[in-house]
Amino acid sequence: MSAEARVKELGIEIPAVPGAAGNYVHAVRTGNLLFLSGKGPKCSTGKVGGDVAWEDAYQDAREVGLYLVAVMREYLGSLDKVVRIVKVLGMVNAVPEFGDQPKVINGCSDLLVEIFGEKGRHARSAVGMGSLPGQITVEIELIAEVED
Amino acid sequence: MSAEARVKELGIEIPAVPGAAGNYVHAVRTGNLLFLSGKGPKCSTGKVGGDVAWEDAYQDAREVGLYLVAVMREYLGSLDKVVRIVKVLGMVNAVPEFGDQPKVINGCSDLLVEIFGEKGRHARSAVGMGSLPGQITVEIELIAEVED
Amino acid sequence: MSAEARVKELGIEIPAVPGAAGNYVHAVRTGNLLFLSGKGPKCSTGKVGGDVAWEDAYQDAREVGLYLVAVMREYLGSLDKVVRIVKVLGMVNAVPEFGDQPKVINGCSDLLVEIFGEKGRHARSAVGMGSLPGQITVEIELIAEVED
Repeated sequence: MSAEARVKELGIEIPAVPGAAGNYVHAVRTGNLLFLSGKGPKCSTGKVGGDVAWEDAYQDAREVGLYLVAVMREYLGSLDKVVRIVKVLGMVNAVPEFGDQPKVINGCSDLLVEIFGEKGRHARSAVGMGSLPGQITVEIELIAEVED
Repeated sequence: MSAEARVKELGIEIPAVPGAAGNYVHAVRTGNLLFLSGKGPKCSTGKVGGDVAWEDAYQDAREVGLYLVAVMREYLGSLDKVVRIVKVLGMVNAVPEFGDQPKVINGCSDLLVEIFGEKGRHARSAVGMGSLPGQITVEIELIAEVED
Repeated sequence: MSAEARVKELGIEIPAVPGAAGNYVHAVRTGNLLFLSGKGPKCSTGKVGGDVAWEDAYQDAREVGLYLVAVMREYLGSLDKVVRIVKVLGMVNAVPEFGDQPKVINGCSDLLVEIFGEKGRHARSAVGMGSLPGQITVEIELIAEVED
C-alpha cells in the first residue's frame, strides 16, 4: 500500500506546516536527498523527566512527526515520492538525569513506520539536550531519499 | 551576483581557517556534498542566557559562519563553486532555561544569505547543548552542495 | 593496506552489533552514503567531567567506534567497501562545565584512522549533551561513503 493510501486508511490528519522561527527554510533538496529542518510541538514545553512525563513527550514526538510529514508532502506534492526515511535526529529537552530518550523519540519513529511501512524504517539517534527553542519538549530533524 | 563578488562588495573579510582541535579534518567531500566539521568562535566562552547575552552570541555565530565560509573557500578554491547551503546544525552552549537558540544561530544564517543569496537559504536546527569544547558559546556545522 | 588487513594485523577484535533500543535500524544506505544510527558503550554510564574522567570516556568512545565498525562490516560484508568515513557526530554526556569533548571523541576518531588510514580521516563535531539514553557516557553516529 502506498504512503498516501495508508494515511487515508489510518485516518491520519496531516497538519499545516508551521512557520519558521528564524532565517531558514523547511527543507532543501540536493540530488535525491531531502534535508528537513528541525521541528517542535506547537504548545508543549518543559523538561522531560522533570515536569513532563516521557509518555507525554512521546505524544509530542508523534506530533512533530506529523509536521515533518507535512513538510515532505508540501515539498514533494505527494508522500508517495518518499523512497526511504534515511535518518532521524531526535532531541529531547530533558533534565540531566533523564535516560528514556529512545522511548520518547519512538513517538515519531512509530508514526513514520505506520505511514511509510518498510520505507519508513530509519537510522536514528535519540539524545538529551540542555535546552531547546522556547523550551519545547522535543525537536526532531530528518533526512529522506526522494524521487520525481 | 556571484558569492565572491558579494563578499567583495559587502567588504566581508574572510578569516584564516582555524586549526583542528582533535583527530579530524575540516571538510570531507563525497559526490557533490561537502560535509564541514563543527567550528566555534576564537575567544568567546560562557553560557548563553547566563553570563552571555543572546545578542553577543549572535555575533559569535556570525564569526563562526565566517570560519565555515573560510573552510569552503580553502577547500573549493572559490565560493562560486557552492551550489547551495543545504543544512546547518547550530548548537548553543546555554543555561537550561534558555529558549532563544534561533535568534543566536541567525547570526550564521544571516551571513550565509548575505554571501550566497537564495543559494544560501538552508534547512536548519538550532538547539541548546549541555556543554561545548573549551566552553565556547556556539558550535556550528554545515553541509553544502558543490560543483567543480 | 586494506581495512580488513589492518584489523587483522593490529589484532583488533570487532564485537557483535548491539541490539537497537527503539523503533529504528542500525544503518540505511542511500546512493553511496551509509547513515549509521548513534551507538553507545555497553556498560559505561555517568557524567563526564563529574563522576567519569575524560580518559575513561576516551576508552568508551573507542568502544563505540568498534560497534560502528561492526555495523559497517555487517551491512557491507567487508570493511574494504568503505571508501571514506565522511562525518562523525560525537556526543558526550557531560557536566555543564566540561570542555574536553574533542579529547573524548578522539577515542573513536583514532580507531577509525587506525583501521581505515587516510580513508578514515573525517569531518567531525564533538559536543556536550544534557543527557543520553540510560546515562551512557557517549553516543556517536557516523556517515560513510561506500561502494559495491
